[in-house]
Amino acid sequence: MNPDLRACIISVGDEVVGGDIVDSNATWLSRRLIELGIEVVSHAAVRDIRAEIATAVKAAAGRADIVMVTGGIGPTHDDQTREAVAESAGLELALNRSALEHIESIFAMHDRTMPPSNRKQAMIPEGADILQNDSGTAAGFRVRLDGADVFVLPGVPGEMKRMFDDQALALLPLGGRVSVTHTLRCFGVSESLTARTLSSKIDFDGRLKVAFLANEGVISVKFTARADDRAAAELEIEPALRTARDLLGDAVFGEDDDTLEGVVARLLDEHGLTLALAESCTGGLVAHWLTDVPGISARFLECAVTYSNQSKTERLGVPVRLFEAVGAVSEEVARAMAEGVRERSGADIGASTTGIAGPTGGSPEKPIGTVHVAVATPEGTAHRKLQLRGDRRRIKNRAARHCLDLIRRSVQSLG
Amino acid sequence: MNPDLRACIISVGDEVVGGDIVDSNATWLSRRLIELGIEVVSHAAVRDIRAEIATAVKAAAGRADIVMVTGGIGPTHDDQTREAVAESAGLELALNRSALEHIESIFAMHDRTMPPSNRKQAMIPEGADILQNDSGTAAGFRVRLDGADVFVLPGVPGEMKRMFDDQALALLPLGGRVSVTHTLRCFGVSESLTARTLSSKIDFDGRLKVAFLANEGVISVKFTARADDRAAAELEIEPALRTARDLLGDAVFGEDDDTLEGVVARLLDEHGLTLALAESCTGGLVAHWLTDVPGISARFLECAVTYSNQSKTERLGVPVRLFEAVGAVSEEVARAMAEGVRERSGADIGASTTGIAGPTGGSPEKPIGTVHVAVATPEGTAHRKLQLRGDRRRIKNRAARHCLDLIRRSVQSLG
Repeated sequence: MNPDLRACIISVGDEVVGGDIVDSNATWLSRRLIELGIEVVSHAAVRDIRAEIATAVKAAAGRADIVMVTGGIGPTHDDQTREAVAESAGLELALNRSALEHIESIFAMHDRTMPPSNRKQAMIPEGADILQNDSGTAAGFRVRLDGADVFVLPGVPGEMKRMFDDQALALLPLGGRVSVTHTLRCFGVSESLTARTLSSKIDFDGRLKVAFLANEGVISVKFTARADDRAAAELEIEPALRTARDLLGDAVFGEDDDTLEGVVARLLDEHGLTLALAESCTGGLVAHWLTDVPGISARFLECAVTYSNQSKTERLGVPVRLFEAVGAVSEEVARAMAEGVRERSGADIGASTTGIAGPTGGSPEKPIGTVHVAVATPEGTAHRKLQLRGDRRRIKNRAARHCLDLIRRSVQSLG
Repeated sequence: MNPDLRACIISVGDEVVGGDIVDSNATWLSRRLIELGIEVVSHAAVRDIRAEIATAVKAAAGRADIVMVTGGIGPTHDDQTREAVAESAGLELALNRSALEHIESIFAMHDRTMPPSNRKQAMIPEGADILQNDSGTAAGFRVRLDGADVFVLPGVPGEMKRMFDDQALALLPLGGRVSVTHTLRCFGVSESLTARTLSSKIDFDGRLKVAFLANEGVISVKFTARADDRAAAELEIEPALRTARDLLGDAVFGEDDDTLEGVVARLLDEHGLTLALAESCTGGLVAHWLTDVPGISARFLECAVTYSNQSKTERLGVPVRLFEAVGAVSEEVARAMAEGVRERSGADIGASTTGIAGPTGGSPEKPIGTVHVAVATPEGTAHRKLQLRGDRRRIKNRAARHCLDLIRRSVQSLG
């Protein structure tokens, strides 16, 4: 069995270091490598400067078995990655005939002649393994450097992913231990409370790795185990996962890639229920998230984004006297909205949000961040009052998640 | 005049290196630092391992004048950044009383007692400058290391951004040349057409730096000039900016941080108009974006997310015969939706979307990505047919932007 493999990822490009784009290539590569049981040690992003690319590649090759370099292999003068990597490995660049033919064929396919600048994309270090680009012109390659395998891939995400899966994967020195990860997704608890709850029963410093991540109100607890094979790693995680589920109870809404909206869609399917929404302060965000779920059209009938009081009355039947008596941001109006949209749409479930997202509109009794959510079902109406912190976007975001969470809990509690 | 300043950015966290989240903090910090005239040299992301954080910080301090470290200062056992940075700088951690009081006050505000684990977040290297956290518990700090200023900020984006702007900024050793950037935001043209249009009249290889960036259908043309002071840099950019505006015409919807929804909100204000929406395939996304704009409640009355045909008829008055004659995804239904929501809400402007976002529902005549948008005004109804590529989310996203763009152009063309 091979020893554990370690990888470093390097993204090349002024647009990454300059903040014009987020480096989603590194994120994607990390996930794929970890799935393959490879330990990812670090990411780096460097500019299109030959010496800086070379320094980063040499440093990474000294620390890892695998170096994945993306970007900087386009046709323009500022693309310097092939030169930098060749130099680092002490190799000359040479024209690769099959790479050149491939580029020419792509231009021919579009009835165009290849500009001379693209010839550069067929230059590969001598002795390197070529990685064919099935979705673009730039060829990739692999060279050995200081005992590491250095892979050079395009920066265009679609081209990079395809080249990794179709070409680079087969050249990875795999074998050995695998890593398995399971994540519990929770809502309605804090990160520190989650950690404290689990710390009494689960050994955080043992062979199992436990990590906590708070992201937009969702607390993720990630368990990672490494073992000789997948089954053995699963076996190591399983008891901890079960203990954590017991301890965290219904704060857990799902696992791994589950989202609140995906879980709500699944529950509606399982229970054969339809849903309608009435959103005020969230402004359509709950409906937007839900309609990201493929197939939701069978369950989701409609949403009324009723920003004005008048529309709350006309679309949902909220009594005008409520606005005078308790105001639009109140438990009563939230309930009337949820019940109103349920009745008027004919859906089984009606859910609502009403609140003050700011930056204006707050008062001492109802400060910015005051939000009411309600969910009406055939068995009654549930309500949650929130006092949220942050700016307008954050308040909308958290309020929308609470609405989905209340829908989830309401559907789960149906007989 | 000081020499140019160089910065390195380090993101700490297993969730970044493990590919659980994209590193948007580094992107944001790059932009802000570059705006301040600071040269950003590299990004790095390392795991929550004390030695690896320390190695990265020391390497960065050796290469740059400013090191921005984000993440790893939470309350849990895997948060190691403060220890790593203190160790690198040869300093001991000590409890900072004001930081502790701040954390306790946040818990008190929520009627909760501070868990002992949060005490850790008030530990600061001795002699460091504390950076107060006005939106969370973790205190940040600045220390000197190998001649560099090392800033430690939270990993939570909202907390990090606020701490940078409100606290770190004032401690940056600014001075010297400044860099000024202006960006034109365009919609409805391709990146290559934009570049070709401008290349005839603007020198891309001169002292002015011109960059093109395509992001979610929005084409940004970014002009950057460096000079001894802001006024001189502005003077260098100004003629190019004017020429570009002339050449690109009404494809330009705004400048710098302008968004389509922000521009639509501004135009509604300027013209004193109200808006109502009827969304089908975009599922509330147009309303969500619009309601991110503070103050929109004075202009935006309501949105009907009518996913089912029945709701299109009941909420908007779309004639049933249209579904049989031409189908829900058609110019006729888009127009009926826009006109229907305008009439029923009493708004001045009604806008609609209807289309096939996939992954199912396509046909040879109406493949996935077929979308119609319409905008009804007092002067008539405009319509745009789109054939969009990509997955469900991408189609929703592009359709929503086209809807906003058609609202913008319709309002601009009103007498």
